[in-house]
Amino acid sequence: MDDREILQRLTDLGIELPPVPKPVAAYVPVRIAGDVAFVAGQVPMVDGRVMHPGRLGDPEYHVTPDEGTAAAGRAALQALAALRDALGGSFERLRGIAQVTVYLATAPDFIDHPTVANGASEVLVQALGDAGTHARAAIGVASLPLGSCVEVAVTAAIVSRA
Amino acid sequence: MDDREILQRLTDLGIELPPVPKPVAAYVPVRIAGDVAFVAGQVPMVDGRVMHPGRLGDPEYHVTPDEGTAAAGRAALQALAALRDALGGSFERLRGIAQVTVYLATAPDFIDHPTVANGASEVLVQALGDAGTHARAAIGVASLPLGSCVEVAVTAAIVSRA
Amino acid sequence: MDDREILQRLTDLGIELPPVPKPVAAYVPVRIAGDVAFVAGQVPMVDGRVMHPGRLGDPEYHVTPDEGTAAAGRAALQALAALRDALGGSFERLRGIAQVTVYLATAPDFIDHPTVANGASEVLVQALGDAGTHARAAIGVASLPLGSCVEVAVTAAIVSRA
Repeated sequence: MDDREILQRLTDLGIELPPVPKPVAAYVPVRIAGDVAFVAGQVPMVDGRVMHPGRLGDPEYHVTPDEGTAAAGRAALQALAALRDALGGSFERLRGIAQVTVYLATAPDFIDHPTVANGASEVLVQALGDAGTHARAAIGVASLPLGSCVEVAVTAAIVSRA
Repeated sequence: MDDREILQRLTDLGIELPPVPKPVAAYVPVRIAGDVAFVAGQVPMVDGRVMHPGRLGDPEYHVTPDEGTAAAGRAALQALAALRDALGGSFERLRGIAQVTVYLATAPDFIDHPTVANGASEVLVQALGDAGTHARAAIGVASLPLGSCVEVAVTAAIVSRA
Repeated sequence: MDDREILQRLTDLGIELPPVPKPVAAYVPVRIAGDVAFVAGQVPMVDGRVMHPGRLGDPEYHVTPDEGTAAAGRAALQALAALRDALGGSFERLRGIAQVTVYLATAPDFIDHPTVANGASEVLVQALGDAGTHARAAIGVASLPLGSCVEVAVTAAIVSRA
């Protein structure tokens, strides 16, 4: 894909690629197998802190759907930044997004996963156009690292090295 | 794989491929990266409604293992239908199923994930024979979209386009 | 990769590849799509029993972080054993690990997923060196098969058959 065009589109939207978060443990941000790039699960971080920690639908430790949606968008942007970094600082070798799994920390009776997960999906389509569309799974889980309300795992289609 | 043969096998089993559910959000049913096709997580739908909403092992919002197993089978069939559709309306380019992740909405003390997840696995093997066998993960989660008791995410091996 | 070297490294660390667990249901331990090998989710087993069943951060059905870490390591070793077995009894065709998803059974307020998930990551790096590094997602879930406190799903990069 055209690196300049994508960066320009993000600029036009007033979106800046966030810094690539350093893994908080013994792993790496991106690994490639053939035509597929696997990005580590992203917990949304702002200024070194988890963005909107808490649980969706939980009266005690509350996160609103809007906050969750924003956090999902941030995590997706981090995944994009990590991808670009791993592909040599350019989106040139990126073909598109393949799969996105959005894990949401929720109370057991929460049902509106699609709306919150759209926060991630829409950022990817805004940034990459049609190539940003993807197969998606949205899952409500018991807990996430650092108390995050969302974690986003992205798999991308890339041009494999000859 | 042979498209007619697979359809015939399903007919012999009295199984009909369900309509491909439209994603309820900003994503697509299937995306391909090289030799791998990623199918969006499927929530089992019948006549526009979630099949057997609820939680496994939950006394208040109950789904029986048999209901869960049937719902998992339905979700797997939807994944097959989505795959066929994305591959041009034929199983010709399908090599087989690679990975299946079965997410079950459960109470915390539920332990019989394998039995319920078999509902998905067995449908895939019935439809595709040996090529339908797959690596599988079965996970008990807090909540799923629309209150579904199961969501099935399928990854398939396909013949990549030259 | 060099099969002998990896086995030697494991021996030097006092680590033995465990037996490949037989799937407890209708699936197979490993499936390959092109350059990618998908390993079934591994529940850590010792002598036919789940290692350290329970939940992290749960006062009633307790598993300590150290126990969880050990269990995650065991599950990762099982994934390695399954991979080697599926690749013809040798690591020769293995390029490296691509993605690891560590599912932890947790109480809702557990936050230290990275530490426990490191149990899996570190075993893979110990065994395979740099090729063992991977993209990772760590997720806290409601329940796992057989009451396990951890399930580890590994995806590997391999040399595809011509």
